[in-house]
Amino acid sequence: MSYETEQLSEVKVFKDPVHRYVHVKDRLIWDLIATPEFQRLRRIKQLGTTNLTFHGAEHSRFNHSLGVYEIVRRIIENFADEPNWNKEERLLCLSAALLHDLGHGPFSHSFEKVFKLDHEHFTQQIILGDTKVHEVLERVRPGFSQDVADVIGKTYKDKLVVSLISSQIDADRMDYLLRDAYYTGVSYGQFDMERILRVMRPMEDQVVIKSTGMHAVEDYIMSRYQMYWQVYFHPVTRSAEVILTKILHRAKELYEQGYAFQLEPIHFLSFFKGKVRLDEYIKLDESVVHYYFQLWQEEKDVILRDLCERFMNRRLFKYVEFNPGTEMHVYLELHDLFKKAGLDPSYYLVIDSSSDLPYDFYRPGEERERLPIHLLMPNGELKELSRQSDIVESISGKKRTDHKLYYPKDLIEKVTDLPIKRKIKELLNIQGDGNHVR
Amino acid sequence: MSYETEQLSEVKVFKDPVHRYVHVKDRLIWDLIATPEFQRLRRIKQLGTTNLTFHGAEHSRFNHSLGVYEIVRRIIENFADEPNWNKEERLLCLSAALLHDLGHGPFSHSFEKVFKLDHEHFTQQIILGDTKVHEVLERVRPGFSQDVADVIGKTYKDKLVVSLISSQIDADRMDYLLRDAYYTGVSYGQFDMERILRVMRPMEDQVVIKSTGMHAVEDYIMSRYQMYWQVYFHPVTRSAEVILTKILHRAKELYEQGYAFQLEPIHFLSFFKGKVRLDEYIKLDESVVHYYFQLWQEEKDVILRDLCERFMNRRLFKYVEFNPGTEMHVYLELHDLFKKAGLDPSYYLVIDSSSDLPYDFYRPGEERERLPIHLLMPNGELKELSRQSDIVESISGKKRTDHKLYYPKDLIEKVTDLPIKRKIKELLNIQGDGNHVR
Amino acid sequence: MSYETEQLSEVKVFKDPVHRYVHVKDRLIWDLIATPEFQRLRRIKQLGTTNLTFHGAEHSRFNHSLGVYEIVRRIIENFADEPNWNKEERLLCLSAALLHDLGHGPFSHSFEKVFKLDHEHFTQQIILGDTKVHEVLERVRPGFSQDVADVIGKTYKDKLVVSLISSQIDADRMDYLLRDAYYTGVSYGQFDMERILRVMRPMEDQVVIKSTGMHAVEDYIMSRYQMYWQVYFHPVTRSAEVILTKILHRAKELYEQGYAFQLEPIHFLSFFKGKVRLDEYIKLDESVVHYYFQLWQEEKDVILRDLCERFMNRRLFKYVEFNPGTEMHVYLELHDLFKKAGLDPSYYLVIDSSSDLPYDFYRPGEERERLPIHLLMPNGELKELSRQSDIVESISGKKRTDHKLYYPKDLIEKVTDLPIKRKIKELLNIQGDGNHVR
Amino acid sequence: MSYETEQLSEVKVFKDPVHRYVHVKDRLIWDLIATPEFQRLRRIKQLGTTNLTFHGAEHSRFNHSLGVYEIVRRIIENFADEPNWNKEERLLCLSAALLHDLGHGPFSHSFEKVFKLDHEHFTQQIILGDTKVHEVLERVRPGFSQDVADVIGKTYKDKLVVSLISSQIDADRMDYLLRDAYYTGVSYGQFDMERILRVMRPMEDQVVIKSTGMHAVEDYIMSRYQMYWQVYFHPVTRSAEVILTKILHRAKELYEQGYAFQLEPIHFLSFFKGKVRLDEYIKLDESVVHYYFQLWQEEKDVILRDLCERFMNRRLFKYVEFNPGTEMHVYLELHDLFKKAGLDPSYYLVIDSSSDLPYDFYRPGEERERLPIHLLMPNGELKELSRQSDIVESISGKKRTDHKLYYPKDLIEKVTDLPIKRKIKELLNIQGDGNHVR
Repeated sequence: MSYETEQLSEVKVFKDPVHRYVHVKDRLIWDLIATPEFQRLRRIKQLGTTNLTFHGAEHSRFNHSLGVYEIVRRIIENFADEPNWNKEERLLCLSAALLHDLGHGPFSHSFEKVFKLDHEHFTQQIILGDTKVHEVLERVRPGFSQDVADVIGKTYKDKLVVSLISSQIDADRMDYLLRDAYYTGVSYGQFDMERILRVMRPMEDQVVIKSTGMHAVEDYIMSRYQMYWQVYFHPVTRSAEVILTKILHRAKELYEQGYAFQLEPIHFLSFFKGKVRLDEYIKLDESVVHYYFQLWQEEKDVILRDLCERFMNRRLFKYVEFNPGTEMHVYLELHDLFKKAGLDPSYYLVIDSSSDLPYDFYRPGEERERLPIHLLMPNGELKELSRQSDIVESISGKKRTDHKLYYPKDLIEKVTDLPIKRKIKELLNIQGDGNHVR
Repeated sequence: MSYETEQLSEVKVFKDPVHRYVHVKDRLIWDLIATPEFQRLRRIKQLGTTNLTFHGAEHSRFNHSLGVYEIVRRIIENFADEPNWNKEERLLCLSAALLHDLGHGPFSHSFEKVFKLDHEHFTQQIILGDTKVHEVLERVRPGFSQDVADVIGKTYKDKLVVSLISSQIDADRMDYLLRDAYYTGVSYGQFDMERILRVMRPMEDQVVIKSTGMHAVEDYIMSRYQMYWQVYFHPVTRSAEVILTKILHRAKELYEQGYAFQLEPIHFLSFFKGKVRLDEYIKLDESVVHYYFQLWQEEKDVILRDLCERFMNRRLFKYVEFNPGTEMHVYLELHDLFKKAGLDPSYYLVIDSSSDLPYDFYRPGEERERLPIHLLMPNGELKELSRQSDIVESISGKKRTDHKLYYPKDLIEKVTDLPIKRKIKELLNIQGDGNHVR
Repeated sequence: MSYETEQLSEVKVFKDPVHRYVHVKDRLIWDLIATPEFQRLRRIKQLGTTNLTFHGAEHSRFNHSLGVYEIVRRIIENFADEPNWNKEERLLCLSAALLHDLGHGPFSHSFEKVFKLDHEHFTQQIILGDTKVHEVLERVRPGFSQDVADVIGKTYKDKLVVSLISSQIDADRMDYLLRDAYYTGVSYGQFDMERILRVMRPMEDQVVIKSTGMHAVEDYIMSRYQMYWQVYFHPVTRSAEVILTKILHRAKELYEQGYAFQLEPIHFLSFFKGKVRLDEYIKLDESVVHYYFQLWQEEKDVILRDLCERFMNRRLFKYVEFNPGTEMHVYLELHDLFKKAGLDPSYYLVIDSSSDLPYDFYRPGEERERLPIHLLMPNGELKELSRQSDIVESISGKKRTDHKLYYPKDLIEKVTDLPIKRKIKELLNIQGDGNHVR
Repeated sequence: MSYETEQLSEVKVFKDPVHRYVHVKDRLIWDLIATPEFQRLRRIKQLGTTNLTFHGAEHSRFNHSLGVYEIVRRIIENFADEPNWNKEERLLCLSAALLHDLGHGPFSHSFEKVFKLDHEHFTQQIILGDTKVHEVLERVRPGFSQDVADVIGKTYKDKLVVSLISSQIDADRMDYLLRDAYYTGVSYGQFDMERILRVMRPMEDQVVIKSTGMHAVEDYIMSRYQMYWQVYFHPVTRSAEVILTKILHRAKELYEQGYAFQLEPIHFLSFFKGKVRLDEYIKLDESVVHYYFQLWQEEKDVILRDLCERFMNRRLFKYVEFNPGTEMHVYLELHDLFKKAGLDPSYYLVIDSSSDLPYDFYRPGEERERLPIHLLMPNGELKELSRQSDIVESISGKKRTDHKLYYPKDLIEKVTDLPIKRKIKELLNIQGDGNHVR
């Protein structure tokens, strides 16, 4: 028996609150789950700082990765008798589903922004580099790891396979919407996944949806829209993210200035230098970040210690709505006033923007082309979703952007120059308590 | 307006997947949640190593503490018109509910065992010591923190108040059963809490249950029984716990032997020395433990690095059922064989026992007296639960104990002396794969 | 103690799968539930023929009415401290909520259409006429029943009270969406009602929604939209409704022609005559309808017996999409062919249309003016929902209509004139099985 | 293609709130569902009078029958690769599962008791007699209907097949526990069916459970125990059943006395005479019963009209606990007093008993032998459940019986002879309101 076809002596199951059970029968999948690189995902939260807003959101990327694998497993099971489905791609799909987030680090968004990293690059490196994951994948056949990397990188030749993992209605999105809704406890993320799985049909270069399932897809797109604005872009979460980003900026800046840290931040050095080796990247999990942030609460640098103390103890920035198109002069005035008040505006006055495009049809030539969702009509024709659905049409291609200005209300209250303080409060419209938790 | 009666300008709510919403109206509770000591509970998992078995169980003690608070809040709301209820105890109950787990450290069970600590002692210290929590509590009135400490310590004069937090059907247990069931995804922990809350009645020295609610209480006790054996004592979880305990033992032993750690384990020193100051204790959250375990994967000491590598990458010990009453000679023989095979049995051959007493009536004079659950009969009489319920009677006072012997199957497979290896495998009944995940 | 303020000795609870528990504390509500007129609602299904499509939808209007009452009870509880809320309206609101559907008969839609009835008229009659409900209401004070009737009839002076029961986001709609979703098992009807209840604020003449709750309201409107198209207008359900309507037509027609029924349809006589007394109306529950339909399966009249047999045994009509704007000639041609084939087209070729307006803002002067939903902005201003929400804006005022043509495929297959049969099948595009269950 | 192997062109699904979806692929099953005899189950409630206590319990036997079918379908799917499983029994199992309740009439329990009927007898008759169901079954092969009847009657040769439908852990019980819990809204009926299905293994003459699933089975047995005492034997439901039984008694008695009913009760005549033909039996669904009960509310006979009015409008009897062993003299004294007060004790003073045996091991030679549940141990041995499970052992074989005495409190209040009234109230311990809804 080859490794490719090796099955476990009995199906192993993982109890999963979202999909009830995750089933593993292939030796390959079992071995991949057991690698240190995959186990590391247990120490990286799926939603970064969101648990500071929704306390239930403490689940890890490990949790989510198993879920994506399970969804793809079920889709493929449904495809068993479909003529368009190439059964030989099965293990490849399952592996890519399981490993698609492998390169995520802790608080990916902020790290990527400050240190100019790309988690997709690291996913590729882990799969192709000198790792246990790579070793296990190559047992299937030489070159298998490259295929997995290509599927995740969207360059694999069989676009149907790619579309299972990356499209506007892929296993990744379906899992995270359901899972994040479950753990946060919000009801918005729910949709009838079982129905969607049943109406998925494999076509030559993509998965399409039988038109009878259109309403279930509408519901999925609305869920996605709601989760973005209610959970993922929640202003309190963004406040924590702003602080986190500023901590990383400050630490890097201090390092570049030759500042003497009490304990040398060995895990961060390569990040500060801008050259991160794979083994260094892998070591930096959320525990390590928390460890340093705790230490830095006792650093001499006032800004670094203040920001770390805020992050660890959830003393977040407050915010006001902000329109960069018409209110830039307000920002500039505040910038000036903050300086006069002794508050460094590069750390304490931050514009943060979120934007989402809930669904889009294909716009050739655009920067990030998106594969639209196609409906399979009873007559065999394919129609792009937004042409059939009023609801989807109404939000299709409409990018929504939201800007907020973040600031530390407590520090402003302590400003001693009263006219400056009054002016700042006036411009920020601070009256009572500032914003509330939710 | 005094601090004691100060209300927030509007009710703050936390979205909670178990209780839907947690409501906070009192300024005191809001301020307590914001303290660093309470925020620290975000970095300590409620179920320690259980997530290595049930991947959903990644929720923190912060999460649970809010839940206990919310249950007590609802109970008290129901008590509003009860003559036996003293409304002046309200804030005290809420504070004690919120803070009852404040002294928990990471992986409490193992740390307490190895370093002879007691989390209840630290809960008292945090409440009474030089902390932000203490400062906030004392704002209510001098001595209020002592009252809170007394309620949690079960020495408070009003036993009714104590019984809300600590009894065989208290808010703590109700929350953790429901919450742990929710996050793991098992169905066993469910019971009709809303009904139980509605049939609770305050009596002079305890909360009792209206007899019409007996079946809901039976269901709660059965849930507890099932959760203990299916989740809390799951042998795979216990395997992780065994390894964790052995890591701590090893590190302590090495320290005592003057071993030179590559990086001085400053956070652990006071634990090794057996004198832990409050501020040192508070710093040791789960991130710090993970940080050291990651470092120790690269230590020179073979046992320490092996155990840490196992814990971090989930390469756990396998197990067999073990009866200490009749099979101690087997253990001793294995002990001997392990030594000969070069496997230190103090680290690699471990007996672990679990036992639970699902419910008990009062047995005066016994070591840990338990307050029984009383039913309030229609005629006003009180009857002890197990006298009315066949189900509860049948499991009442019956302690169930389970012993297992843990060992590293992979290391045994590598033993080079074949007769010894064969003998060990025979005694441990190792044939195929050893035990399975679930 | 007056009847108005009389409370039960303890709160009675009804276990409810949607709201967990329905709580009754007022003697008045308890007594209203016990009246024969209210108990009669147990014998009328909430969703008429929907259970022929979604077998779970067997719940009654009794079930729903308790739910609406409970929602209003919770809203009022939340309003307790609101200055705009007049506590004296409490019992009036609760009574109107409980009784708002009292005049519904079995399969209301079809009966109203065929016999030109109006259930709202009968609701008024039951409340104001010589009934037990009336008697109980008048115990509160003379004229109380008139107030209840006015609230339900939307003519009551206090428009805030009216808006709780009848508006675009009232307790009626919230309950039926959640309840129908629960019993059918579809996931579309879910939304976060608890959050909506918490952001409702009483204003002078309507309930408004705090703007922070906008997303929950969006979700509610989308749920409504989905439920309409996926459940309420499901073509198989409409097929059953078409047949039911045709049974009533046929029976009436036969009666008017002096046809001799085997058993005189005493319960139907007044309906056929067009003069229905209240006591006659009340007697006609779903059991009685089923009883007659069973009898009529053995009538001599071929059409009546065929239609009844279809309805009772779920042998429904098939359907094709139909566009009255462009395909009327097809209909006329079919009409002709049916006649030639011996199939009476007035019974066997039926156009059925559904249309829904998911949300609308106020359009003064229009036939059925709708009160829009208003958001209460942080600055105290009111804004109409569709001006703030992109999603709602996109579907606001957009009426969607759908037409289908229903026919009995089995009878067409039995047509003996082959050219006619072939032509009919061609025009109806019948190839294989016709439409499927779902 | 033979009818036996004929498949639908695509899987048909029924949305089901308990199992999410019911899947039908076999033409045979599809045709059986479409028969009038099966559709008739839509007009018979699964739980008879329970909806008078739990208003959600309005679901029909149609609903449940689909559920049992779906569970058996899933079990067989899991058995696909099991050597002990005979694939040729598949359609037989599915048909028996679907049809096992076919002979149930409305309010079976009361009808069977009063008219000495047996629904199992009618199930056999419908399957073997001149019915559409019979015709469809025989299409598979001559004699197939007899096999189905034998499986349901437990006389079929392959005991493994029988045990899927009828044993202490069969598909019937699993479905009704989950379903009844869902519709009533109680939480007690929940257990992890998915896990039980996964640990079921076919053995020569029965289905057994892998020992690793023992806790899930314990939970199932506890659910059953709770549902019996909390839902099925609820005293208010029993009160409705008592009244229903007395209505049937009274009508039969009147008929036997030559009483002239206002409308001849044609549907009941054969029941009164004790000779019920199949076609007569099938016509008597719940609608017909309700129709007559409504008519009888206007009969001249005071007892019949009173009882019918009580049943239709839910004016139930009250009850007291009653011990036939020690309180028979009280009953006799009351019997006498009722007569003196003009209340016929055969209708107005009723002892009703419920008893349940939650689980039993095999007791050879006993009246109703029960097949025990067997666990399949890792070593291949079978062990009877109660020997492995403390919980099950504790309730095994313990029959619990409960007796209550039912009476019309309102009529007693109207007794004019004050000493008799006082004495009755004293003996029945009537003080305030009598019993409450729940």
